[in-house]
Amino acid sequence: MKLKVKNIGLSTGGPLIAILNKEDAINLDLFALDRVRLKKNNKILSAVIDIAEDHQIIPGYIGLFQEVVKKLKTHNNEILNVALQKRPASIKIIKRKLKDEKLNSQDYNQIVKDIVANRLSDTEITYFVSACYTRGMTLDESAYLTRALVKNGSQLKLNKKPILDKHSIGGIAGNRTTPIVVSIIAAAGFTIPKTSSRAITSAAGTADTMEVLASVSHPIKKIYSIVKKTNACLVWGGALDLASADDKLIKIEHPLSLDPKGILLSSIMAKKKAVNATHVIVDIPYGKEAKISKLVNAKDLQKKFTQLGKKLGMKVKAVITKGDQPIGKGIGPVLEAMDVLEVLQGSGPQDLRKKSLFLANELFKMVNHKPEASKILDSGLAYKKFLEIIKAQGGKKPKLTLASFKYNLKTTKAGKVSYIDNKEINHIARIAGAPNNKKAGIYLHVRLNSKVKKSQSILTIYAENKSKLNFAIEALRDSEVVKIK
Amino acid sequence: MKLKVKNIGLSTGGPLIAILNKEDAINLDLFALDRVRLKKNNKILSAVIDIAEDHQIIPGYIGLFQEVVKKLKTHNNEILNVALQKRPASIKIIKRKLKDEKLNSQDYNQIVKDIVANRLSDTEITYFVSACYTRGMTLDESAYLTRALVKNGSQLKLNKKPILDKHSIGGIAGNRTTPIVVSIIAAAGFTIPKTSSRAITSAAGTADTMEVLASVSHPIKKIYSIVKKTNACLVWGGALDLASADDKLIKIEHPLSLDPKGILLSSIMAKKKAVNATHVIVDIPYGKEAKISKLVNAKDLQKKFTQLGKKLGMKVKAVITKGDQPIGKGIGPVLEAMDVLEVLQGSGPQDLRKKSLFLANELFKMVNHKPEASKILDSGLAYKKFLEIIKAQGGKKPKLTLASFKYNLKTTKAGKVSYIDNKEINHIARIAGAPNNKKAGIYLHVRLNSKVKKSQSILTIYAENKSKLNFAIEALRDSEVVKIK
Repeated sequence: MKLKVKNIGLSTGGPLIAILNKEDAINLDLFALDRVRLKKNNKILSAVIDIAEDHQIIPGYIGLFQEVVKKLKTHNNEILNVALQKRPASIKIIKRKLKDEKLNSQDYNQIVKDIVANRLSDTEITYFVSACYTRGMTLDESAYLTRALVKNGSQLKLNKKPILDKHSIGGIAGNRTTPIVVSIIAAAGFTIPKTSSRAITSAAGTADTMEVLASVSHPIKKIYSIVKKTNACLVWGGALDLASADDKLIKIEHPLSLDPKGILLSSIMAKKKAVNATHVIVDIPYGKEAKISKLVNAKDLQKKFTQLGKKLGMKVKAVITKGDQPIGKGIGPVLEAMDVLEVLQGSGPQDLRKKSLFLANELFKMVNHKPEASKILDSGLAYKKFLEIIKAQGGKKPKLTLASFKYNLKTTKAGKVSYIDNKEINHIARIAGAPNNKKAGIYLHVRLNSKVKKSQSILTIYAENKSKLNFAIEALRDSEVVKIK
Repeated sequence: MKLKVKNIGLSTGGPLIAILNKEDAINLDLFALDRVRLKKNNKILSAVIDIAEDHQIIPGYIGLFQEVVKKLKTHNNEILNVALQKRPASIKIIKRKLKDEKLNSQDYNQIVKDIVANRLSDTEITYFVSACYTRGMTLDESAYLTRALVKNGSQLKLNKKPILDKHSIGGIAGNRTTPIVVSIIAAAGFTIPKTSSRAITSAAGTADTMEVLASVSHPIKKIYSIVKKTNACLVWGGALDLASADDKLIKIEHPLSLDPKGILLSSIMAKKKAVNATHVIVDIPYGKEAKISKLVNAKDLQKKFTQLGKKLGMKVKAVITKGDQPIGKGIGPVLEAMDVLEVLQGSGPQDLRKKSLFLANELFKMVNHKPEASKILDSGLAYKKFLEIIKAQGGKKPKLTLASFKYNLKTTKAGKVSYIDNKEINHIARIAGAPNNKKAGIYLHVRLNSKVKKSQSILTIYAENKSKLNFAIEALRDSEVVKIK
């Protein structure tokens, strides 16, 4: 059937979607979410169709979203040949997974390929996520999915061994150990090309924090040169597109806050595999307000990381750490960068220093190197290395300032800190503007079991304007973030 | 946050969707598929948001799809108050179902309520369908879902007992027993208010066939008067909106051709419950090319129908019938209407006559009435009743004609018919134009085990134009629709 293009002028943010009038859909024997093959000269593209209920698309026309217009290089009123198109190969595979069949390496590769090429609709990806969640995934399946994610993204191929890496499953406010660990490891002469994410639900990710000091979005060529110069990098993984199907899976998981364990494992390991890591330390914090609240679950995850690493030819050590309160004092990009700089210069929050040294030493042990993290840190070599990395990434000698609107929360009585609500602190730091307002966030003056006097500062909120500060203060009043007994 | 309306001028076909610029989404701490509360004076509406990746929605604006514009009665540049909105109650319920919890009556009611009110996105409905499919549903759950569907749609409340009804799970070409059964039952003085669907994947539904003879879309008030006059009706269920969440579930099931049994059962039974049926006969055809190909599955479904009926306070008898070939000779709306009229006048395809009499007698037995179907049919009372129903629904004395382009498929050798591909016949009738071209379809001259001579007509294809006829002939050549041994 020949139809005229109507450029809808909207993008979908991914999927290739076309809209047909009901009448034309009937003539083509098509239903909503079926696919059509669009042909223009020798260019062929497959799109998922939606059916217009009213008169926005009249018969004889086909409405195209931006993604389709661009890919087909077409324009208003151009005539396309439109025909029913078979469903992509992954559909049958997803259905098999829903039926509780185990999938093989080719299956996962096909699914990821189709997701990356925008050949699957949100509904179809949802079925996949849902199947992985309800049916579970074997470790083999997680390995297949990991390899598929790596294969269909770009990779960092350094001709070196060993390549070290580090990951935290997150969920703890502050906890900015990565820049410290990377600096120590690289200062000892090991290669550690670290890619990190931006915050999704927290007040800062390593990429957000690093961005305070240097650029974190670099093309892959530049990353090679940064690593060559410094043995390391501290960049945003997204710019690399190392595992591009990942973002789409995360989007689909969001509405129900689902995190199918098999997908989670694959998503993490794919980012390690994409930089060709050989030795990886994984930090699994657990605690009441952490991502993992039960020790048995933390142990299960620990085992799975190690086993999956083995299947992927990586040595992975997962350590379970205490996650009952924030690590470090700053929560928010600049506040966390300040903690990191202080620790690297020999002072700073002791819990952040300790945890960073522990993780660095675990990595040293994995490559049979002496656990000399504190020596490297105290000698100033790690700080020197960190400045090198900042410089290689286009940053300058750091000079940091905080947001100018602030509020001090004080104790109403003397006593001992018995509880710190890690999740709520994250939440309030976000309301104050973090991570997008880099200078916003929370400075935490106390630790668990700190003895406090009456009217002593517990925490300070920083915000870039009065209204965000007020919103944060309001949220603070609604919840008991720090308990004193 | 205050944002200006930009009317996108597109509809979504259901869900309430708004589009934000990335910057504004960040300031509201919102992700794609989150919800916002839109406020205009005292009007409040909840919408799912999508995030614009490019410049189609600039900061300070909110793009609204038609459905939202209409419900809010807003227009371009009007200022709305936009705030983060909690997820609807069903989200947590759906997640519990994904985790394999059994849901209760309130749970299903909440989900259906939210679907009907367009409060759930496609992704969220997909999670629900997927959970029902992978986790299964108990009979109690099917009963809860049935009641929820009925409660959230409109109902036909006839102050009578018994109310008879009939359903076929479909999949057999032709098989237009409903108008015959309804006419016989109503002629015997029983009430049988039949609502039917249009074809989804077949060449004709009962609603498509009846539409050849009379109008099938009537407001509920008119349906009451039709039933009052004739004891019966033969109308399209969709016009009644008897179970309106159903269409949305079907749309979501389509891409993977899923049919979670629990949802299927509920969807069928809801339509019976919505007309307050007390006695229901269900036809389950099984055969190689039928919907149900294994006897064990047919028997399982049979049991479930009866049990579910009991839970819903309905007497349901499900019969397993032979589904190894089409029933009747016509496949397509007019062709099937011709078969029906012939049978009602004492001639016509014998298999259609026999099956209709069988189903009518089963219904009679259910209400302890003598099984006098053939007497009523042969006396002409059923035909008279049918004409009454047609008249009450605004139709005239039928005069039917077929599409003028036709093609005869002939045998190439003498022998016996050993196989008729029911699915393929349906498919080719659709390619020829059925059900949208009412006069198009297939007339089948032979039955299984018919003895045929060389060059005898096997089937005739009818189409309304040359190109559709040619497409159908092409499809016919690609497959062996009728095998001769």
